[in-house]
Amino acid sequence: MDYTSNSNRGSIMKGRVPESIILASEERRGAEFLERIWGKRPTFVCTIGNTETAKIPGISAAGANPAITDYTPAADVELLFYGKCKCIPGVPVTPDGIPTPGLITMSAIGLSKMPVFALNGGVRVRPIAPYFELDGSPGEDIRTGNAVKDPRKVFENAVVAGENLAAHTDYLVVGESIAGGTTTALAVLLAQGYDAENKVSSSLPVNPHPIKVQAAREGMSKSRFSAAEMRKDAFKAVAAVGDPMMPAAAGVIVGAARRVPVIMAGGTQMAAVLSLIRSQEPKALDNVALGTTRWILNDKSADLIHLVKQVGSVPVLGANLDFSKSRFDGLRIYETGIVKEGVGCGGSTIAAICHSEGRLDANLMLEEIDKAYERLMTHKH
Amino acid sequence: MDYTSNSNRGSIMKGRVPESIILASEERRGAEFLERIWGKRPTFVCTIGNTETAKIPGISAAGANPAITDYTPAADVELLFYGKCKCIPGVPVTPDGIPTPGLITMSAIGLSKMPVFALNGGVRVRPIAPYFELDGSPGEDIRTGNAVKDPRKVFENAVVAGENLAAHTDYLVVGESIAGGTTTALAVLLAQGYDAENKVSSSLPVNPHPIKVQAAREGMSKSRFSAAEMRKDAFKAVAAVGDPMMPAAAGVIVGAARRVPVIMAGGTQMAAVLSLIRSQEPKALDNVALGTTRWILNDKSADLIHLVKQVGSVPVLGANLDFSKSRFDGLRIYETGIVKEGVGCGGSTIAAICHSEGRLDANLMLEEIDKAYERLMTHKH
Repeated sequence: MDYTSNSNRGSIMKGRVPESIILASEERRGAEFLERIWGKRPTFVCTIGNTETAKIPGISAAGANPAITDYTPAADVELLFYGKCKCIPGVPVTPDGIPTPGLITMSAIGLSKMPVFALNGGVRVRPIAPYFELDGSPGEDIRTGNAVKDPRKVFENAVVAGENLAAHTDYLVVGESIAGGTTTALAVLLAQGYDAENKVSSSLPVNPHPIKVQAAREGMSKSRFSAAEMRKDAFKAVAAVGDPMMPAAAGVIVGAARRVPVIMAGGTQMAAVLSLIRSQEPKALDNVALGTTRWILNDKSADLIHLVKQVGSVPVLGANLDFSKSRFDGLRIYETGIVKEGVGCGGSTIAAICHSEGRLDANLMLEEIDKAYERLMTHKH
Repeated sequence: MDYTSNSNRGSIMKGRVPESIILASEERRGAEFLERIWGKRPTFVCTIGNTETAKIPGISAAGANPAITDYTPAADVELLFYGKCKCIPGVPVTPDGIPTPGLITMSAIGLSKMPVFALNGGVRVRPIAPYFELDGSPGEDIRTGNAVKDPRKVFENAVVAGENLAAHTDYLVVGESIAGGTTTALAVLLAQGYDAENKVSSSLPVNPHPIKVQAAREGMSKSRFSAAEMRKDAFKAVAAVGDPMMPAAAGVIVGAARRVPVIMAGGTQMAAVLSLIRSQEPKALDNVALGTTRWILNDKSADLIHLVKQVGSVPVLGANLDFSKSRFDGLRIYETGIVKEGVGCGGSTIAAICHSEGRLDANLMLEEIDKAYERLMTHKH
């Protein structure tokens, strides 16, 4: 009855971290984490939610216009399951027509044959696909100071899902899709007392820090909780100015990390999730790494490493993706720092590379992503 | 990238089928099926639904009274996750106070440490737990002839869930909890043209065949589909006179059976599910066995083997449970043929025995079940 016997499977990396993976912070622990997952079999989990915060003008590029950002998480999930979206034509794009990073995740999943599960923290538009229901609600605008209903319930349901999902897999990769998520992340980090101003990334070409900070400050001042309460109790911070993805992601990570390693696949949003995890089960931090993209690590308008270091000593890994040689403008433009991260694209790429024992590299990934782009973006459906 | 490498794990049964497992039909294929799962790691899936059919007087004992049968599936799922129910005090009982067979399943899960997932085909009362949402609706009374809304959608969502759940486990055990389910099973089998009258079991002390047949006939005559249409198209039979558990169970079994063996854990209800599976993906029948209890196999008021043989050549296995030596009246009474099956109790017991490579037997199972009964039934919460 030994459920951990499969930890003997897989080969040894032998300390040679592949060039396609960047050790960005806590290098030694990051390399050890990679050793543990080298050649092993991952499971991908996409946590989703909506927040009205995404509709504040100038906040989010996760959708062609603010109204359609409600569809982005559902469409991303469908893309991962079916290789195409069902609830919208085409795929989610930015106002400039740049496609969702879900294209990258879809390619990583295809190459590594990871099973996929979706966790609904609280969406307005449900995926046309199976998903875990956690009894959450869509999030309100954080400027109300009352953004998330009962995050503890969603967290507790997600913990149970995470424990069961971790029973038969070697490790989990937990990504997110929620438009407006860096603003809610900023707000939760500020409410928890971290130095986060001007540190979160953006999917937009120019990071709208002033709009984000203003929304966060307004929400904190409107909250029924005092600054001291929100600083002390992460659930109060999330309830006031967070989003519904956060308790779903934190819960599934906590539940899974009791059994297996977990890649927290995302950018600065995952710093807020980390803050919630630390408040509930600090031991979980020993079994996680943050997996993101080179574009996030290179983002001069933000500082992921600084955010993560404040919360805990968690290794940060980066997928060394390079789209400069893509066949398509819509992908080459990622190199200018637009979009950067989402749908766990960095972490799932790291998982695909480790699963292949390094045979997959950034060039082969780009070939796959180019093919996906060609199929989904260059003719109408 | 070999996802089937774990099929080498586990030991060999060497043809000695343990006394705790009955080969009831298709003996050679049943023994081969047991060889394939011997020592391997299962995953348990509980499919749930509600049907107004359960409220027809005299139909169901899956609840202390007809109104409360809406709570039974949710309460059963909570029992499996938490070892206690959350949406009701105590556990589901029959009108005579006999506890849910979920006590048996819970014990089998505890002994084998199977992960657990719930799939919602369509319930009125949702579990206080994570569950897969498949976008189904609660079922209407089959006498309307319009019992299940869009079963194909639920089936297709469940197929996707099944494929992903099967990626990292050696095999699946798929049970059900739905009050009124043998009546809907009878109706679907009749609508599909099988000889099913007086062949389905009951949780009641006296099998109310006349009430069931009358409800089934009334529903078939009210349906907007002709007899020929319902006979030819299983989805039409289910839409007319089935229940929402059926497409959820059939879908998850079809999806999983593409990758791994599946135990269909239930009694005569699973014959109707089998009929739906055969209509959609007959190849799946090669990778499934029906796992039930000795009480079902011994049921003189029904004939599971006859039903299954009509649908396909699928082995039937029985958990040789014997409660005659239980410390508790409420369990000894199972030997009189009350309750008999439910929540996948027979199939999960078979899985627990195979997982233990035969070290677990019917006596040890009863010890565990007695302990569960003592904890949950002999003092108030």
